[in-house]
Amino acid sequence: MEVTRQNFKESLSTVYNAIEEADFLAIDGEFSGISDGPNVSALTNGLDTPEERYTKLKKHSMDFLLFQFGLCTFKYDEVASKYIIKTFNFYVFPKPFNRTSTDIKFICQSSSIDFLASQGFDFNKVFCHGIPYLNQEQEVQMREQYEERRSQSNGSGTNSYVSPNSKGPGSIPDEHREYIKRVVEKVESLFTTSEKTVDLEPCTGFQRKLIYQTLNWKFPKGIHVETLETDKKERYMQISKVDEEERKRREREKLEREQEELNDAVGFSRVIHAISKSGKLVVGHNMLLDVMHTIHQFYCALPEDLNDFKEVTQCVFPRLLDTKLMATTQPFKDLINNTSLAELQKQLKQSPFKTPNVVPAEGFPSYDTAQEQLHEAGYDAYITGLCFIAMANYLGSFLTPPKPHIPARSKLIEPFFNKLFLMRIIDIPYLNISGPDLQPRRDHVLYVTFPKEWRTSDLYQLFSAFGNIQVSWIDETSAFVCLSQTDQVQIAMNTSRYAESYRIQTYAEYIQGRQSVRQSQVIATQSWSEEGWVKPQHTSMAGTAASYRPSTGKRSSSPVQEEPAQSEHTDGWSVNPLSDKSSKKIKTDGCVQTYAGVVDSRTTEGWLKTQSASDFPRISPVQEEAANETNEAAGGAWELQPSANQSKKGRKVKKRKTDDSETVSTLFEVPQVW
Amino acid sequence: MEVTRQNFKESLSTVYNAIEEADFLAIDGEFSGISDGPNVSALTNGLDTPEERYTKLKKHSMDFLLFQFGLCTFKYDEVASKYIIKTFNFYVFPKPFNRTSTDIKFICQSSSIDFLASQGFDFNKVFCHGIPYLNQEQEVQMREQYEERRSQSNGSGTNSYVSPNSKGPGSIPDEHREYIKRVVEKVESLFTTSEKTVDLEPCTGFQRKLIYQTLNWKFPKGIHVETLETDKKERYMQISKVDEEERKRREREKLEREQEELNDAVGFSRVIHAISKSGKLVVGHNMLLDVMHTIHQFYCALPEDLNDFKEVTQCVFPRLLDTKLMATTQPFKDLINNTSLAELQKQLKQSPFKTPNVVPAEGFPSYDTAQEQLHEAGYDAYITGLCFIAMANYLGSFLTPPKPHIPARSKLIEPFFNKLFLMRIIDIPYLNISGPDLQPRRDHVLYVTFPKEWRTSDLYQLFSAFGNIQVSWIDETSAFVCLSQTDQVQIAMNTSRYAESYRIQTYAEYIQGRQSVRQSQVIATQSWSEEGWVKPQHTSMAGTAASYRPSTGKRSSSPVQEEPAQSEHTDGWSVNPLSDKSSKKIKTDGCVQTYAGVVDSRTTEGWLKTQSASDFPRISPVQEEAANETNEAAGGAWELQPSANQSKKGRKVKKRKTDDSETVSTLFEVPQVW
Repeated sequence: MEVTRQNFKESLSTVYNAIEEADFLAIDGEFSGISDGPNVSALTNGLDTPEERYTKLKKHSMDFLLFQFGLCTFKYDEVASKYIIKTFNFYVFPKPFNRTSTDIKFICQSSSIDFLASQGFDFNKVFCHGIPYLNQEQEVQMREQYEERRSQSNGSGTNSYVSPNSKGPGSIPDEHREYIKRVVEKVESLFTTSEKTVDLEPCTGFQRKLIYQTLNWKFPKGIHVETLETDKKERYMQISKVDEEERKRREREKLEREQEELNDAVGFSRVIHAISKSGKLVVGHNMLLDVMHTIHQFYCALPEDLNDFKEVTQCVFPRLLDTKLMATTQPFKDLINNTSLAELQKQLKQSPFKTPNVVPAEGFPSYDTAQEQLHEAGYDAYITGLCFIAMANYLGSFLTPPKPHIPARSKLIEPFFNKLFLMRIIDIPYLNISGPDLQPRRDHVLYVTFPKEWRTSDLYQLFSAFGNIQVSWIDETSAFVCLSQTDQVQIAMNTSRYAESYRIQTYAEYIQGRQSVRQSQVIATQSWSEEGWVKPQHTSMAGTAASYRPSTGKRSSSPVQEEPAQSEHTDGWSVNPLSDKSSKKIKTDGCVQTYAGVVDSRTTEGWLKTQSASDFPRISPVQEEAANETNEAAGGAWELQPSANQSKKGRKVKKRKTDDSETVSTLFEVPQVW
Repeated sequence: MEVTRQNFKESLSTVYNAIEEADFLAIDGEFSGISDGPNVSALTNGLDTPEERYTKLKKHSMDFLLFQFGLCTFKYDEVASKYIIKTFNFYVFPKPFNRTSTDIKFICQSSSIDFLASQGFDFNKVFCHGIPYLNQEQEVQMREQYEERRSQSNGSGTNSYVSPNSKGPGSIPDEHREYIKRVVEKVESLFTTSEKTVDLEPCTGFQRKLIYQTLNWKFPKGIHVETLETDKKERYMQISKVDEEERKRREREKLEREQEELNDAVGFSRVIHAISKSGKLVVGHNMLLDVMHTIHQFYCALPEDLNDFKEVTQCVFPRLLDTKLMATTQPFKDLINNTSLAELQKQLKQSPFKTPNVVPAEGFPSYDTAQEQLHEAGYDAYITGLCFIAMANYLGSFLTPPKPHIPARSKLIEPFFNKLFLMRIIDIPYLNISGPDLQPRRDHVLYVTFPKEWRTSDLYQLFSAFGNIQVSWIDETSAFVCLSQTDQVQIAMNTSRYAESYRIQTYAEYIQGRQSVRQSQVIATQSWSEEGWVKPQHTSMAGTAASYRPSTGKRSSSPVQEEPAQSEHTDGWSVNPLSDKSSKKIKTDGCVQTYAGVVDSRTTEGWLKTQSASDFPRISPVQEEAANETNEAAGGAWELQPSANQSKKGRKVKKRKTDDSETVSTLFEVPQVW
């Protein structure tokens, strides 16, 4: 269903119902661009920390506009054993609501626009009929404006025009005195004639303010004052003779009108609020940017700090699942070799996967997956949901007895909750929204600086003695080089000691250098915060987030959120500090992850990978494919695959009761390959 | 005529012909936004210097996209006594041409987009079918890329992959040796079979480079090597057995294909080049932003310095005329009270003006001015041309005998050449492209700083003892205040001496303060230029400009450009330094301008003006109207109206011969009111 400004209001209850009845939701966004950064390696270095990646995306991607939002709601019909779906394709545009509303500027990236154009995207629907929206702050501002105006016309308003030099509130400047006197005479004459209303000439905002003040004071009862607009958009005042009942009725009507205007202005944000309040599982494919844009546009400016972002995200989307992360994790990783959305969907039609039984709800058009409509947000959301179902149901085949249908609330999919795929980071597969991030050891990594003429081949030449290496460019004159063995690091450092054209640091030295730079920045920030500049911003952000935390009582379908086990889930993380060289294993969600070595035999093609990578920032599909390729190149850099002895540990985890039909003991029958 | 990517190539000769045969051209642009600045008073202060205004527009407007370019060519038919017009409406979009081309990012301002949407603008035509373009630098880059690739495939290329560690140019890295050996064997086998071509597997750019090098060396004759693309956009090489004649033919074809690709990429810029080379008079309405955007998009990044910008502009558009400047100058000023394009066009239909006799050329659709299609660039260009003709012909009524038709090359309109309307500057009507700008005295102006709670009414209150004042806001805490009499300045300064909440400086003090800031910046810049960083940029800009200076020999229709009088015209300027308080008169173009006092009786409405002004940056029509209003408010702040004794001086200017039909003596029969 296409939703624009023209049918938004009448569609809203349909949207609300669809969200309310759904088992889970799938979403997707289309943007006016991906990155305004200088180049892809600067935006997505393979050895970014999660903090660095978040900061880069925030800096280089948030000025684009999310202008198409796809929502597909999935409701499972137990009797018919099939999902009933409702797909919505919202066109979104920040049409300024009135003279005082923010005039949003957004960036368009010509490659992204050109790509969408080639897919038949209808820009007129966005720009001419897009649904407006407000974020939290703008909504509050608008509400305050209305209140201010109301109290002003009541005569009870704070006099914002009181000046340090004026003779007191409500005083009329000399030059306006004659004009106001004439207005008062006009209104007085209203009471001596049979006329019910008098229209004043169009006048300035300042004059209107003076008139409101004066009339409220002179005629506390018996008249109703209103500002109207002529055809030429000039504002004028109409004064009506009314009895007290009529006056109250008019006030009430005005209040209702204002509330409706406010709702219209909040516009599409109401859909996001409804998704948020529902607490339903929200599924997306490679969804970090979608989540960031959604929060940025419809909630609040993104916080500086990654942990604050995680907090806000958990309030807006209590349960997220990224199908790209799922597809690149065992048991799917070995079965799926291309995790771009289109390819994933194709592969999930084939054995061992089963095509989900899905039908559109009555009155909703059906999509034909054979006739691809990729990069229409609604369609992409739809097939993301299909991918999720196919993969979830496949997990059911590991149960005893196997189950053909795994519901969205199943414990089996919990390990994938709130982990958003991180593109092109070779040793951190995901951003963990509900806990600290993985900290892989990087003691086989070197930070190399060199003249800007150098190419990847020069780096291969330089390190030719050390076997296979992997190169991650940072900028024109620096790169990370991963050696295949940690003990080579010291040799490399030693041989480079007298080099003049290049310089080598260990990763630890590099991080230390960055941290000392950052610390001096933090000191500067703290001195600002003493001036009350930075701190309040953070406070207001947290306030915003808190006000949108759905009450936990409502989400009975979410066992994880309510059980004490949740704290165990979070605390179950053990974060390896870089100094701890004893362990490469990180416990997560009752499973144990092993991080395999970073280097593989194909790194001689590193040059090629870097080349093809340069196409990435241009369009989303290329982005996915290239990322896929890079993770391939990293040679299975990471797996959610416990080794034999570790999986035994996993089995020892004590049984916990859940409100799910599967018991924990059943859950851990999942074989070792997962 | 609508021109998109789909019909651009076939339309180009029609466009070239129309430009070639025209007497003058009218242009107009539509942009994706007007200003990304914080607010209108910061962008257009009423007392900006031309340098300040240029810098602000460059900073806050150039990131928007000029996406519709209107061109209307006017050719006078002497026999039928009417203009034949051809209107073109070009949709322009920077579609990336290939993988290496610049991925342009541009800003959209939602109010501007919303306004165009409300006018029925077709965004799909822009984004899906817009004509691509390259600026000078990009064109050169692309040409060099082609040449580089050509010389590489000839084997004569500079080896850009020579690394500091490699064993010499052309050497094959160990890991590729086996692969290259197999390729050579394949090509050798070609000579032993009847096959004519062999296709290699898709490979990397680096491998292709190695193959080109090796084959050129091993098989200097007898084969033709080409890189092709598969359906999946993978690049592979095809090697063909050819005799020498065939090889040369193929090379030639390839060269031609490349030239055509280059032309396609230069795209819409070719139209601007043609306009530029024609040297024809180019008419626009309030055209400063149109000119800046056109140069920025299709020629070069705008220079830092205003004088450099003037130089580039004169090269790209040797003769410009701004109808808004014309309409706000005598003899038109007294006859026209609203100079927004739509209103101007309406007023010029009425006496004493005559509606021009204009018909569309065969095959070109006609516009109905009654059924307004404003804000379609082609239509706006068309009515701008109509306005120019009506005003030019009106000047003919002052001749003895009166002339009903004044051609575009007439001396009568020369005073308006190359003067671009400056919006909302109260005492500098225009930016003078072909000479130094006017420097009005501002010794009645005060620079006031105050707490951010202050409103305009506070300033009125503060200066209430000094009669009428005019306020130009700079930012939240500062404004210029124009007093009605210069001798009040010292009194104001004296009374403010002990004020705590506010501070007053004279305009001269303010400028001095700014200059010392700027000087320290200049010193910094100079130290950069010693490092070869700033200077080369300027040099390349000047070079670009020079390469587009049309040869003067071709423009026989342009007497001003060819006569020695040109230098007199330029040197005729006398610029009043601020320290010279003796004169308010500035000589220009053989006329003498008097700058009337800045203050009028309506300044009590200054608050209102500031309010309405806040609507300005949002959309172009509002912009024009608001500007108009402001200039009204300034109370005829400036006029191109010589006083009685000065006009006598004007008459004394020695007669010069021109190739125009009117002699100079006739020209100066124009009465004193002009």
